[in-house]
Amino acid sequence: MEKEITIAIVGGTGSLGRGLTLRLARPEIKVIIGSRDQGRARQAADELNRILGKELIAGQLNSEAIKEAGLIIVAVPYEGHEQMVRDLGNGLKNKIVVDAVVPLRKGKPFVPPAGSALQEAQAILGSEVSVVGALHNISALDLQDSRSSLGDVLVCGDSDVAKQKVMEVIRMIGVRPFDAGPAANAYVVEGLTGVLIYLNRKYKSKHASVKVTGIGE
Amino acid sequence: MEKEITIAIVGGTGSLGRGLTLRLARPEIKVIIGSRDQGRARQAADELNRILGKELIAGQLNSEAIKEAGLIIVAVPYEGHEQMVRDLGNGLKNKIVVDAVVPLRKGKPFVPPAGSALQEAQAILGSEVSVVGALHNISALDLQDSRSSLGDVLVCGDSDVAKQKVMEVIRMIGVRPFDAGPAANAYVVEGLTGVLIYLNRKYKSKHASVKVTGIGE
Repeated sequence: MEKEITIAIVGGTGSLGRGLTLRLARPEIKVIIGSRDQGRARQAADELNRILGKELIAGQLNSEAIKEAGLIIVAVPYEGHEQMVRDLGNGLKNKIVVDAVVPLRKGKPFVPPAGSALQEAQAILGSEVSVVGALHNISALDLQDSRSSLGDVLVCGDSDVAKQKVMEVIRMIGVRPFDAGPAANAYVVEGLTGVLIYLNRKYKSKHASVKVTGIGE
Repeated sequence: MEKEITIAIVGGTGSLGRGLTLRLARPEIKVIIGSRDQGRARQAADELNRILGKELIAGQLNSEAIKEAGLIIVAVPYEGHEQMVRDLGNGLKNKIVVDAVVPLRKGKPFVPPAGSALQEAQAILGSEVSVVGALHNISALDLQDSRSSLGDVLVCGDSDVAKQKVMEVIRMIGVRPFDAGPAANAYVVEGLTGVLIYLNRKYKSKHASVKVTGIGE
């Protein structure tokens, strides 16, 4: 991986986006928070820079944020996913897209017509963009607290090269990534977040996550 | 739960069935291994009784095995699942059925037309039978070795009463069960085994499993 990297987080003002930003921001990683509202993006960046005590994070419109970035994390609610991917379209060419979106209906997981959010994005973007599914299953709350330990991250996608790059970035936030297979496996990883949401409600937690056991990394 | 319980394992001569049988068999639990072939059922029972050094396990035809049992674990390959559930049909009335079947096509997970194996069985059996999905994600190999620790078990189904009973049985084999939600969540838990199969192949293990973190039981 290049020494320096710029990562844009589309929908970065949400809780997952903020948590990821806080964990990723460091001198060699430039993080740009993207939002449909430039004011909100800048405000979120300012808040997070204050927490970090350094000016490491920028805030821009989604369409601007992705221009500078080599790796783009899509962290929008599922309702806006398809339209957002269509809108960004050409701007994502030759970039790595990490789709962290979980198809939920009334808080419950389901399998979308394309098979998964990842496959939905891949179908829209075509073969010039490598879409990787990852970061669905870690607690947004725990991401925002640097002292909290995080669950493992299952990484899906049809491009091994893109998966390896994404796994390198994931290791940088102190999380153990696993290659969880092709894009066709993404419905499981996305759905698992729906199960974790159920577990949190049932067992009165906000920290449900999973760890893989029985294998080294 | 009753003091004594009889559990039948349909397709019990397979590796999951054998492992579950070894862990479940004890004086207060009678385990009956079911098979389409009475000779193979008896042979498996004999082998396992020899390992245990006690006569705790019986072997019978599937259709006979389920008669005595209050709780029936279905552990057949997905190819035979629908027909097996149809064949057992009326024999399962007023019993608790644990569906441990994973829809796989060439070793890869997929979502069957009914939504999941659990929902396929529930649709065939109707509302007089409570179908619970469980025991998909633990390693059959580790089950067969009493010294191996096991992953957690995610339990799905639409009957809370049946889920509670199944969770009591799961605790008896030293495994931590979690109520993972309604039958509609089963596709995730079933599919997770497909991801674990991928992880085993990718990372050269036979023990991949998952643990839930961030919540107590």
